[in-house]
Amino acid sequence: MVEIRKPIPVEEAVHKVMQYQKYGKKETISLHDCDQRRLAEPIIATNHVPSFDKSPYDGFALRSIDTADASFNNPVEFEVVEHIGAGNVPKISLQKGQATRIMTGAMIPEGADCVAMFEVCQTYEKNNQPYMSIKRKMEKDQNIIKEGSEVSKGDVLIEQGTLINPGVKALLATFGYSKVCVAKKPLIGVIATGTELLDADQPLEPGKIRDSNAYMIESQILKVGGECLYFGKLADELETSYQTINNALNKVDILITTGGVSVGDFDLMPAIYDKLGADVLFNKVGMRPGSVTTVATRGNQLLFGLSGNPSACYVGFELFVRPVLQSKLFNKKPFLKHITANLGVDFPKPNPFTRFVRSYLTFNKSSIYVHPSGIDKSNVVSSLANATCLMMLPGGTRGFEAGSEVDVLLLDDMEGQEAF
Amino acid sequence: MVEIRKPIPVEEAVHKVMQYQKYGKKETISLHDCDQRRLAEPIIATNHVPSFDKSPYDGFALRSIDTADASFNNPVEFEVVEHIGAGNVPKISLQKGQATRIMTGAMIPEGADCVAMFEVCQTYEKNNQPYMSIKRKMEKDQNIIKEGSEVSKGDVLIEQGTLINPGVKALLATFGYSKVCVAKKPLIGVIATGTELLDADQPLEPGKIRDSNAYMIESQILKVGGECLYFGKLADELETSYQTINNALNKVDILITTGGVSVGDFDLMPAIYDKLGADVLFNKVGMRPGSVTTVATRGNQLLFGLSGNPSACYVGFELFVRPVLQSKLFNKKPFLKHITANLGVDFPKPNPFTRFVRSYLTFNKSSIYVHPSGIDKSNVVSSLANATCLMMLPGGTRGFEAGSEVDVLLLDDMEGQEAF
Repeated sequence: MVEIRKPIPVEEAVHKVMQYQKYGKKETISLHDCDQRRLAEPIIATNHVPSFDKSPYDGFALRSIDTADASFNNPVEFEVVEHIGAGNVPKISLQKGQATRIMTGAMIPEGADCVAMFEVCQTYEKNNQPYMSIKRKMEKDQNIIKEGSEVSKGDVLIEQGTLINPGVKALLATFGYSKVCVAKKPLIGVIATGTELLDADQPLEPGKIRDSNAYMIESQILKVGGECLYFGKLADELETSYQTINNALNKVDILITTGGVSVGDFDLMPAIYDKLGADVLFNKVGMRPGSVTTVATRGNQLLFGLSGNPSACYVGFELFVRPVLQSKLFNKKPFLKHITANLGVDFPKPNPFTRFVRSYLTFNKSSIYVHPSGIDKSNVVSSLANATCLMMLPGGTRGFEAGSEVDVLLLDDMEGQEAF
Repeated sequence: MVEIRKPIPVEEAVHKVMQYQKYGKKETISLHDCDQRRLAEPIIATNHVPSFDKSPYDGFALRSIDTADASFNNPVEFEVVEHIGAGNVPKISLQKGQATRIMTGAMIPEGADCVAMFEVCQTYEKNNQPYMSIKRKMEKDQNIIKEGSEVSKGDVLIEQGTLINPGVKALLATFGYSKVCVAKKPLIGVIATGTELLDADQPLEPGKIRDSNAYMIESQILKVGGECLYFGKLADELETSYQTINNALNKVDILITTGGVSVGDFDLMPAIYDKLGADVLFNKVGMRPGSVTTVATRGNQLLFGLSGNPSACYVGFELFVRPVLQSKLFNKKPFLKHITANLGVDFPKPNPFTRFVRSYLTFNKSSIYVHPSGIDKSNVVSSLANATCLMMLPGGTRGFEAGSEVDVLLLDDMEGQEAF
């Protein structure tokens, strides 16, 4: 009476989906608008940094050879022939016995080969002409930041696929990238299915619930760099649902539906995949929550059939949709970052399947602890709000004790990792 | 000749600034647009969850009392009188010997007090009428998710100031918050000063550099939830600079300038603070980089004078501007999250002042390690791009060995902490 589906392991399911990953498109946007986008091309240094020899301090630029005889009892005197700040070009090439008063970041004048900081100099005037003296010997290149000493022209500084954070944006500005080639945001369609669903602005009715999955997925899509197109919610009615899903597929890069993937009397997605001519990659995964997560393809296009249960829906997105989306954004580390942490509490209940437990981390003396963020019922939506990671507990016949080392997938990390 | 400023400790500087923190404004926006904003009001449950007794499984709702005599050898038979899916309201109140075929999430019919899963039932027809039988005794309330068992109406679910992530957005939808009261983004003005500065789209000239600070700060502001208004860059010329800064102050909540705060001959900010009638809270902090970071107030308005050095500018924003901005967003944990980690490399060079070293973390067997993300020169911009945290090394006469436990401030964490 109940259709028996054979579950495949999570890892196998992820690999099946990632066979369909492919890079997305590129677009060029203004530097001002590039925050939190991903680079579609590497950042290459378009000039040396610094692009000229410059001073790291306020002081005097001079010829080190002129200080050869300087000592505590034998100050050497220099005529100050010019005064330059950052951004000015020195006009005077220094001759023997001449110095240039120079500010931090300013260009070293010709002839000079070192900078003496103010703190080691005496300054005075003679005949209305500024002079300075120094009581110590200076070395060639002392206190000079040499051209190209930080970055050489042509260096690859940041790789394709990197998220543009404030430091990356600073580099883009430094090297004149006033336009930036970024990954185009993939367009992800979202459709919620279920006769029980009300919109967020509708009053509750007996037997019905407000849909939260579509809003949640919209937020998950935006958070990891996609664009969301919401097609509305569908009652469990085959012909209308098929039409809407078929039309949606033509408008988006990836389509996500929620609900209707189980084996209930009104779960229509299996019939819809049939009608669409879609190939179902899998419809049962050995995981909790989210065992009914279904992924299908039509041509090269992926259709994610996530569970209607909010927690299962959430986990299904993070495990299967997110890495595909990250690959389209040229991220070479498309998977959730995977670390280990000490279990903060006992977790006695065993489960034959891999569990993904909504959790958060605490830190104590360089060690990481992980704690469930709420009651572990797949139908409790509130624990998602406090989750910053998913504990990944292997299936088996035993529970887990506080202090055990367990696997954790980080949800807020944006770097990711290369393999699942 | 060089003005001597007395540095104050970092912690004291942070406290001085935070005396001027105050909550910002609120605004109401659409649920669709609320991602990554902060709640200006707590989320309160507007109804019980679930709002009706419901079934967690596909199966049959029935009266447990009717199964009192059921056993392996004595199946009890029920007439199936109704068939309901999620979202339907059952019409028939169950009498003795009657059952309702019910789907996951559907409302429990009147009279029923338990749900038998399909797996434990036999189904068949008699006289074209559906029947089922069960060979085991059921308990009252077995497999029923009771009204209000997950959340009670009136519960405070999420606090004011919380960042809206996908889980929070799901909660907002669940409770009918189709409009959300969020913290209005504070408007932060940015002005870069320095004759040496070129725009990102200008070709390099001798003695000049492209400004990266304004873009970097713009990105830092956006990342933590502010809005940025860029007023352009200023050459080191007193009257024009004063006019621009004075006008800018009237248009923004907070003003940030970069450069001009040191004691060089062309560092004009001290004179501008004078002319503005601003009170300088401090102009020297016992930290590297960023020792010249200056904060001033005019009335209740804060003026942040960050260093023109990119790394110092970056650190100055994170330590001083970010917590003020977070407070305006109602975040009760406005400071950077502070953890400890094992130093991944030797750090032999001592420094009398507290150092903030651009760093990144690695994880190994539940332990955290921290590594500098580049050469620790305050003028190297490229290491910022790879930094996800700041190592905070106390000042002193000794360096630090690999494996030592050191303080770390997390830059990408959005939760924060209550005290610096």
